[in-house]
Amino acid sequence: MHVVVNAAMSADGKLSSRQRDQIAISGGADFARVDRLRSDSDAVVVGVGTVLADDPQLTVKDEQLCDRRLERGEPEQPARVVVDSKGRTPDDAAILDDTATTYVCLSEAASIDRRMDLANHAELVTAGDDRVDLLRAFATLQEQGLEQVMVEGGGELIFSLFEVGLVDELRVFVGPKLIGGRDAPTLADGDGFIDEFPLLRLERLERLDDGALLCWTVDS
Amino acid sequence: MHVVVNAAMSADGKLSSRQRDQIAISGGADFARVDRLRSDSDAVVVGVGTVLADDPQLTVKDEQLCDRRLERGEPEQPARVVVDSKGRTPDDAAILDDTATTYVCLSEAASIDRRMDLANHAELVTAGDDRVDLLRAFATLQEQGLEQVMVEGGGELIFSLFEVGLVDELRVFVGPKLIGGRDAPTLADGDGFIDEFPLLRLERLERLDDGALLCWTVDS
Repeated sequence: MHVVVNAAMSADGKLSSRQRDQIAISGGADFARVDRLRSDSDAVVVGVGTVLADDPQLTVKDEQLCDRRLERGEPEQPARVVVDSKGRTPDDAAILDDTATTYVCLSEAASIDRRMDLANHAELVTAGDDRVDLLRAFATLQEQGLEQVMVEGGGELIFSLFEVGLVDELRVFVGPKLIGGRDAPTLADGDGFIDEFPLLRLERLERLDDGALLCWTVDS
Repeated sequence: MHVVVNAAMSADGKLSSRQRDQIAISGGADFARVDRLRSDSDAVVVGVGTVLADDPQLTVKDEQLCDRRLERGEPEQPARVVVDSKGRTPDDAAILDDTATTYVCLSEAASIDRRMDLANHAELVTAGDDRVDLLRAFATLQEQGLEQVMVEGGGELIFSLFEVGLVDELRVFVGPKLIGGRDAPTLADGDGFIDEFPLLRLERLERLDDGALLCWTVDS
């Protein structure tokens, strides 16, 4: 499995404001880049916080890219995955619509009721007691044939994936805005590292839209 | 007055870990760049949080750069400024040593005792009731001949300066580490903006050390 984390952050490393409003950070060129990256992926993953805040559909928007997927013998859309320890994904979330296969990764802490509701809309993967055991959940996804995996956030999930060593690449669009806020979501939240920080290697640096694209690989 | 904010952040926008330990983010080339920027400045400014966490001296290290300042008829070292509402700068802080003129910007909330102690080591500028009134304090600094001003952090001061519209440029070294942490200090903390985000223009983008240097101007 190859895991690429992709996100857009403000010049000061924020994914959104402290109110968790969705803020336009990138532009059309970055949007097209993200769409291509999705179409090259077997699965697109987000945390439940992102589902609750933004209600993303996470599908490939460019029909030509979808056609190419079909030509390659792949499903028209990549699978979608929500990491959702307690099963808080709403039944009417866009990510549960019928445009693509969706997996919801739960922990044992998700109630039976929520599981039964979600099972009507998604494939369920259960791993971990209180929180999703990401290593086990991602191993299960890999068994389902999901090899190229793209993670779109939020900062809690991104940190957790770095914590367990699952991230191979980090691609960050840095946009021309300052958001600020000690409580605003950042690219990597969680408890944070206090030593043995993951080391990155800058593979690519370019201007894109009115900002910069930084592509890092993770030193293993 | 022209205000340049300069800082080094991790790939995820953090200035240090949640424990506020100083973390090496940049390398020798960035260190030399910062030294040149200091030597081109009339004053180097930090918030008291940075003084308490890192105890920086904030002087120009390259003697040739100091010589050139003298040749230009400038003081050997740029002035140092601490923004310190309550007068918490310790008497033995490196920034209060006698290698350069130091200004401590206080609010009325700083006690008489602290003022008397600090007055032995620094020029005092008082502006604001509970917190330093940055517009007034910086106007006073300008009256002292400080025109080219460099701000080195931390995230609380940087946000406050953006909030009052005092920042002309933002130069950020983005380093090859992931720090993470929802409570780790970021490039711009404070309350954060929820709308009318300051807009930036990317003037320069280049590889430096093992990371990237992004130089932004602030749209006014």
